[in-house]
Amino acid sequence: MPVKVAINGYGTIGKRVADAVRQQDDMEIVGVVKRRPTFEATDAMREGYPFYAASKENIPDLENAGIKVEGVLTDLLEMADIVIDCTPKKADYKTLYEKHNVKAIWQGGEKHALTGLSFNAMANYEEAIGKQFARVVSCNTTGLCRTLYPINEKIGIENVEAVMIRRAADPWDTKTGPINAIEPEVKVPSHHGPDVKTVMKGLKIQTMAVKVPTTLMHLHTVVVTLKKEVSSQEVLDIWAATPRVLFFSTANGIKSTAQVMEWAKDTGRKRGDLFEIAVWKDGVHAVNDRDENVKDFGRMLYYSQAIHQESDVIPENIDCIRAMCELETDKLKSIKKTDDAMGMLKV
Amino acid sequence: MPVKVAINGYGTIGKRVADAVRQQDDMEIVGVVKRRPTFEATDAMREGYPFYAASKENIPDLENAGIKVEGVLTDLLEMADIVIDCTPKKADYKTLYEKHNVKAIWQGGEKHALTGLSFNAMANYEEAIGKQFARVVSCNTTGLCRTLYPINEKIGIENVEAVMIRRAADPWDTKTGPINAIEPEVKVPSHHGPDVKTVMKGLKIQTMAVKVPTTLMHLHTVVVTLKKEVSSQEVLDIWAATPRVLFFSTANGIKSTAQVMEWAKDTGRKRGDLFEIAVWKDGVHAVNDRDENVKDFGRMLYYSQAIHQESDVIPENIDCIRAMCELETDKLKSIKKTDDAMGMLKV
Amino acid sequence: MPVKVAINGYGTIGKRVADAVRQQDDMEIVGVVKRRPTFEATDAMREGYPFYAASKENIPDLENAGIKVEGVLTDLLEMADIVIDCTPKKADYKTLYEKHNVKAIWQGGEKHALTGLSFNAMANYEEAIGKQFARVVSCNTTGLCRTLYPINEKIGIENVEAVMIRRAADPWDTKTGPINAIEPEVKVPSHHGPDVKTVMKGLKIQTMAVKVPTTLMHLHTVVVTLKKEVSSQEVLDIWAATPRVLFFSTANGIKSTAQVMEWAKDTGRKRGDLFEIAVWKDGVHAVNDRDENVKDFGRMLYYSQAIHQESDVIPENIDCIRAMCELETDKLKSIKKTDDAMGMLKV
Amino acid sequence: MPVKVAINGYGTIGKRVADAVRQQDDMEIVGVVKRRPTFEATDAMREGYPFYAASKENIPDLENAGIKVEGVLTDLLEMADIVIDCTPKKADYKTLYEKHNVKAIWQGGEKHALTGLSFNAMANYEEAIGKQFARVVSCNTTGLCRTLYPINEKIGIENVEAVMIRRAADPWDTKTGPINAIEPEVKVPSHHGPDVKTVMKGLKIQTMAVKVPTTLMHLHTVVVTLKKEVSSQEVLDIWAATPRVLFFSTANGIKSTAQVMEWAKDTGRKRGDLFEIAVWKDGVHAVNDRDENVKDFGRMLYYSQAIHQESDVIPENIDCIRAMCELETDKLKSIKKTDDAMGMLKV
Repeated sequence: MPVKVAINGYGTIGKRVADAVRQQDDMEIVGVVKRRPTFEATDAMREGYPFYAASKENIPDLENAGIKVEGVLTDLLEMADIVIDCTPKKADYKTLYEKHNVKAIWQGGEKHALTGLSFNAMANYEEAIGKQFARVVSCNTTGLCRTLYPINEKIGIENVEAVMIRRAADPWDTKTGPINAIEPEVKVPSHHGPDVKTVMKGLKIQTMAVKVPTTLMHLHTVVVTLKKEVSSQEVLDIWAATPRVLFFSTANGIKSTAQVMEWAKDTGRKRGDLFEIAVWKDGVHAVNDRDENVKDFGRMLYYSQAIHQESDVIPENIDCIRAMCELETDKLKSIKKTDDAMGMLKV
Repeated sequence: MPVKVAINGYGTIGKRVADAVRQQDDMEIVGVVKRRPTFEATDAMREGYPFYAASKENIPDLENAGIKVEGVLTDLLEMADIVIDCTPKKADYKTLYEKHNVKAIWQGGEKHALTGLSFNAMANYEEAIGKQFARVVSCNTTGLCRTLYPINEKIGIENVEAVMIRRAADPWDTKTGPINAIEPEVKVPSHHGPDVKTVMKGLKIQTMAVKVPTTLMHLHTVVVTLKKEVSSQEVLDIWAATPRVLFFSTANGIKSTAQVMEWAKDTGRKRGDLFEIAVWKDGVHAVNDRDENVKDFGRMLYYSQAIHQESDVIPENIDCIRAMCELETDKLKSIKKTDDAMGMLKV
Repeated sequence: MPVKVAINGYGTIGKRVADAVRQQDDMEIVGVVKRRPTFEATDAMREGYPFYAASKENIPDLENAGIKVEGVLTDLLEMADIVIDCTPKKADYKTLYEKHNVKAIWQGGEKHALTGLSFNAMANYEEAIGKQFARVVSCNTTGLCRTLYPINEKIGIENVEAVMIRRAADPWDTKTGPINAIEPEVKVPSHHGPDVKTVMKGLKIQTMAVKVPTTLMHLHTVVVTLKKEVSSQEVLDIWAATPRVLFFSTANGIKSTAQVMEWAKDTGRKRGDLFEIAVWKDGVHAVNDRDENVKDFGRMLYYSQAIHQESDVIPENIDCIRAMCELETDKLKSIKKTDDAMGMLKV
Repeated sequence: MPVKVAINGYGTIGKRVADAVRQQDDMEIVGVVKRRPTFEATDAMREGYPFYAASKENIPDLENAGIKVEGVLTDLLEMADIVIDCTPKKADYKTLYEKHNVKAIWQGGEKHALTGLSFNAMANYEEAIGKQFARVVSCNTTGLCRTLYPINEKIGIENVEAVMIRRAADPWDTKTGPINAIEPEVKVPSHHGPDVKTVMKGLKIQTMAVKVPTTLMHLHTVVVTLKKEVSSQEVLDIWAATPRVLFFSTANGIKSTAQVMEWAKDTGRKRGDLFEIAVWKDGVHAVNDRDENVKDFGRMLYYSQAIHQESDVIPENIDCIRAMCELETDKLKSIKKTDDAMGMLKV
């Protein structure tokens, strides 16, 4: 019998997790919860997801807007095996979930301490097996884990210096700026470095962060000091075999996050999402720090990657459900199942 | 037997027309033509469209990039009944099309004089029946015709003053600015007003245009002096019954072009396209110019609409094919057939 | 003896009014008030303006940041003849000003009802003479009055349809978006039309407004139905003789608000301000609505103008002080005095 | 007698160098050269700089636009001791300068090989003394040298990893995008690292670069491995004593490049320029790579700095003139003289 999944908070992440759950054969959506009758509530209706109000007070507004309300959050929690919490950071439902004895997954906006368990499918799937509570790490942290984990496994990482060049707002968010400025995070490390360590324990990583006026994707510049010298090609070969990492090339006209997103639109995926991490193939360079004349072979690895902040964590949520609900104990099998269902590509 | 359609120029418009043709049962894609092996060429391959080079010189580059080339443009023209020309403005293929005795449709970047026939499905479908050459008017002109034509038919228009607030570049176009400026068109009327008159002959319309730093949609503010006084509701009722016009409301959180595009993404349409014209329902106001105290009833009509520049002309291309190839003589039947196949919505 | 001016609120407008007052020989700054020790407070110190805290509670923070605090707002009100209120909209000091029997000028963010007197130097200087309270209208309304008033006086206006294409945030404001969207004001008229009528009583004007992602200037497209037919040149001649209206031309490379601002920077004015309204000379068109073949002569006037939202109201504040404090009863003399002192240009 | 300076190319850099030269007492502008009668040509007239056409063919256009033309470039070269070449990259005047036996300074858009001598005032003033040709390095390279040189001198640098987050276009440049994208430079190192080495020979530095949609300033995130452990305060003390490096702090509300530029505007400098490199004081962190518990003391130095691309190289041009023309042999004396004349600040 499929695992019964509830979505608490039907916004950017919530609506995407709902759609991804529906694509799987071992889980199903039993209901989604939203507070206000915005266009996203109408979308939930159109998609046919049973709609629940956060609380009784919200029902009149929702019904006036033509939303058919099946009940409230607590009704839904009674039916669900697991709830995906996509509510804003300030909301605190943990006690409620405990009371209803339901498993729960939070998103990366929450702190590690909330669950004590932070999740990335490749890095620590096994840790989540059978657990009640977990946090899927944020889009940026997920992006760093996706490319760093296999390098650390196959080559070994001495340390990482990464700069997160962050999109300032999501495409639909028209309140947030800046319109024309670059804003550095003056705290070093930015929260991303420590966050990576919640899943890749012991990794030496420092991160700096900068906010820029764009809505499409984050972009990371990453410098890795490896434990041994390798060729650029060896690194490319590792990522070619890594799920959820996709190569792009300026030679094909994909010069920026804009063309990456255009490519994703062309695939026909709903919302033009890019669940994979976009790595510029011609931007991957193993550099020699002993001898400048040696090309494409060395201990220093440089690369640039782009992160679709709205969607890269979606497949991790699916795998996390599978681990917590013990639907699958082998991470690679879960990842493959998720990726096949979601139409993930390797190019 | 389905009409054989060729696409010359597989970019923003070309790729969308191809996909829309494939959704119809009375026409089919026999091939697409592209010059260079960009990521859009790869997309054509993934979609399974027979790929033709513009000329022999382009073949090596394309084949080196892994594109399977079926022939060149002239080969394709031999097979096609009609070619959709989506090449850049500078290209001039008319003589070639004449030589190969193929029908052709150009896009709005071209001048009316090229074909002598400019097309909008609702406004002048009949003019295109059986013709060899036609031009589907530009995205902005299409947007103006969609909302003005039914108002002119049902109420009567004295004159129109419209301002086109134009997105400066398409989402994928990262070369073009401005990044932070507003640029007025100092020519009055801008080219849009005269362009509307190529399909709505005799309409009195003046347009001004301004370029702004955004990539999502154009936005029009429109002021119509009507031939008689009406209520705002009468206008809404007319558009509710008009194909390819969709209402949005700030009450649902759709406050800007960004949320309109988010709504379109949520529909699951490929590329998140919005083929319809987005009209803000709460932005439609019939205003009385004789008496300020009369509300929502008058001779002056004000409204704001947004235009998805990448996709609103796609259904018009389909209808234009149908008219030119005499597949259907009734405009409303063609429009309904196109819209059903493309999943057009009314909300 | 110079009029003693206090500035309550030392931000975008306050700091500019302070500098402009100092340039006059019939008024002086006796103090500026600011709540928090931001970089603008440091700027006030560097400029040598006596610094007052809004209230006692603010003093420790200010002093810790190295600001020399001379006293609090109420101390300053005792010394001042007139206070320029540049505080955020929510603040309400009117009762306090009445209690201290000080004259006061508010800015355009406030409603007309607060003072019952809205001010534009050319349009209604005389109304302000000797008054205790007035409101200088907002940047956009000031811009409309500057160009419409002389046209109405010299030619006569039947009615006006204007679209305000508004910059979404000031250059220093990095919190406010949108980054990539166009947002229409669905209310018609937008508040600008009624606001113009608070100074140009009886003018028939409708306005629509749209917000766009830029920080530099607002831009207006204006359509005026005149009471008689005129040539474009007659209109240009009127504005050539109008204070605080400046011509720009795309022929000189000034194609957008960006180049207008670059021009202003080149003048060497502090902060690169443009106190004048920028009118595109080659964008001014008298159009004939009876006969399309008649060029540059008609009853319909079209033009585009740009508004430097941070500074165009500054000279109006100076004139308003002069009128209220009865330093000058002739508007043209006050305007000339202000403009000479501030280095206003005619080109 | 003052050194006679000609400016070839009166645009973004040229007009600023002209103004800076005029502020010095040991040099003077004998003429500026511009090809077309844009608004910048009018600015040169208003400033009273003798105006020369690039060649005879340009004179009619310039004169028609009301520009008083004193002669052509070759006439000016006869009078000048030194020419500051601020022409676009493609122009090649070296042979002409050699023929006229005039000294010349190029800007950072040119390659090092053109002159064999790249210049930064603090780093290698002495190299330029008496030379005929030199290149002032680009805005980004100048910014890196300003902060790295004193650290290297006083502490010693093992190596540098810097990321240039580049503004995509200047404020006046409305043709160039992107409007909404992040574009990585896939070449590693970007040209900035090697360029720094043309003035700081032997420095170990790698740079990555990314283009973002903003016009105000570049921003660098810099990671320096030092030769010994130091405290954050020691680094701050070094920069406090370094000319042309200015501290800003988020505590004062200066959170991004937008507020840095607002601060510069408030100083009253012409065009709101910031000749200094802006370093976030609270963004400077000495980090310990051996022991995470040690705070603000270590071998790893992290900082963020912003670069006003339009103006930071202007004082270097002045010093370079002084060195090449042997007006001063002591770099610190030249820097002080330049900075006093230009109103440079330390805060």
